[in-house]
Amino acid sequence: MNKPRPSEDEIIANFFAPLAGTAGLGLRDDTALLDVPADCELVISADVLTSGVHFLVDDPPELIARKALRANLSDLAAKAAEPKGFLLGLALPGDWTEEWLAAFAKGLAEDVACFDCPLIGGDTVRSLGALTLSITAFGVVPKGKMVPRPGVENGDFLYLTGTIGDAALGLRLRRALAGDRGWAGALSQPARDYLLMRHFLPLPRLALRDALRGFARTAMDVSDGLLGDLGKMLALSGMSAEIALADVPLSKAARQALAREPSLIEPILTSGDDYEVICAVPAGAAEAFEREAADVPITRIGVAKAGAERPRIRDTAGRPLAFSAASYRHF
Amino acid sequence: MNKPRPSEDEIIANFFAPLAGTAGLGLRDDTALLDVPADCELVISADVLTSGVHFLVDDPPELIARKALRANLSDLAAKAAEPKGFLLGLALPGDWTEEWLAAFAKGLAEDVACFDCPLIGGDTVRSLGALTLSITAFGVVPKGKMVPRPGVENGDFLYLTGTIGDAALGLRLRRALAGDRGWAGALSQPARDYLLMRHFLPLPRLALRDALRGFARTAMDVSDGLLGDLGKMLALSGMSAEIALADVPLSKAARQALAREPSLIEPILTSGDDYEVICAVPAGAAEAFEREAADVPITRIGVAKAGAERPRIRDTAGRPLAFSAASYRHF
Repeated sequence: MNKPRPSEDEIIANFFAPLAGTAGLGLRDDTALLDVPADCELVISADVLTSGVHFLVDDPPELIARKALRANLSDLAAKAAEPKGFLLGLALPGDWTEEWLAAFAKGLAEDVACFDCPLIGGDTVRSLGALTLSITAFGVVPKGKMVPRPGVENGDFLYLTGTIGDAALGLRLRRALAGDRGWAGALSQPARDYLLMRHFLPLPRLALRDALRGFARTAMDVSDGLLGDLGKMLALSGMSAEIALADVPLSKAARQALAREPSLIEPILTSGDDYEVICAVPAGAAEAFEREAADVPITRIGVAKAGAERPRIRDTAGRPLAFSAASYRHF
Repeated sequence: MNKPRPSEDEIIANFFAPLAGTAGLGLRDDTALLDVPADCELVISADVLTSGVHFLVDDPPELIARKALRANLSDLAAKAAEPKGFLLGLALPGDWTEEWLAAFAKGLAEDVACFDCPLIGGDTVRSLGALTLSITAFGVVPKGKMVPRPGVENGDFLYLTGTIGDAALGLRLRRALAGDRGWAGALSQPARDYLLMRHFLPLPRLALRDALRGFARTAMDVSDGLLGDLGKMLALSGMSAEIALADVPLSKAARQALAREPSLIEPILTSGDDYEVICAVPAGAAEAFEREAADVPITRIGVAKAGAERPRIRDTAGRPLAFSAASYRHF
């Protein structure tokens, strides 16, 4: 006989109550109670993640938990908000185990501590289908200081944090290593480790907060592919852009993969899970923005210009790259 | 050929943007921005609902939507909070249709208007499993005025709104009408309609707000069965209670069903989905509480007394009723 699995109350008491902040009321009430400072507004980000779509059922539970939380913190980071807590909704399929939940909670605990962002509530239920997570994260910004998505102006400099495409390559690397090795087999071990780490564990760019609050006109995080997300941000303001491929920041590992398999440029520029930040900064504030962003790697990838066409990326010969889709689409 | 289904952007623009409040930023950003008045705190309720567990796949989509929102508003009502908005997370299985979504959004729109509680954000994704909803509702209370769950004191009067067990009978009625008719077939048509309405469309007791804020020591909503939920609230404060069955408020329809099938007393007292409010009121404030609650039907069902034992319900002969489980359990 297997050991009986914990009840809902035991799940909460054993695994989740240790992660709870004061706003969670010990997870003994049906609600959380959040005190928002009088001079601040609340920024709220909500993501739903499902097994087989956002993660694979066999992914390490610690990493499923951490990536789900980090994806939401990335949304807050792009809005220049400071995380204050999150809710966890968990729909567990019939075959869940105590070991899985313990590992999931352990991963979550690491990031609760790392980002000083406690669990403040949620709901755990039974699912007849796949594992589904729902995370809602709360952050605060001084009133009027949230960086919106619309509002890019002609001539604004477009900045991007970090490097792009690593997570997409990490995902493809996992598939490639399981089957045909091709470019994946040719990568150095450190390059492989780096890409897998970027796939499993994105880094929300919370350190960009002061630079965004001080100088950015608009921002969003890149979660569905650079080309599509940049297009979304620009289109809201009737703007477009021409980006030179040489100006798109790529990691050493991505360059290594690309040298071996040039067609990877498509997933690099159009696939999801980067969790970097793109933002528009008035040209006159660029120097101050770069100074304030000192702790975060940023690259100026182009300049916004009025226009209804989608942004284009040109290769070193000046030819626009053409892709089947600019970003990940659920439907 | 079928008409192509709308994209994620079209789903948002066509179905959900019309329900959005200002805090939703037109649903064009990844986040919502909520302004909490300086003298208030934010009360947050989160529920996850899955197909086959919380609703049936063939339930009318309008009613799935409305019940999901109302279940969360019921949590806010029990905390004496005033609803300000909600997030909707939607994991759609492969066979979703535009018609289903349109009906779902229509139901939601009715309750957005009815409760003056706009949509302020969310996430719509693909699910490889069952339809899963995640609703997070936000309400405000003046600082210090949220009614907690722990804190019942010896001698407090225990009050319950409305009537209990109707939703559980409504659910059983649906099953019974499909198969063996028994007690269900013997019910009058108005009694059947009433129980089905109570099953599909609970009424969050938001009108109890002032009475709770003014006079209640503790409160919670009854979502998993009266006996179990009352026990949960009392146990947090080291309290118990003896309840006389004659004091438990039942609807005419429930009495009709019970007269025909006495064993229904178990689901009436231990099954979920009532969404009524139980609260503890100091004896000295009882008269004022009853006066302030004038618009909401309330019944005094007993008195809290110190003790570690679970609360018991005694029949008219004074015998304690024994049930297999005091409330609904997911695991």
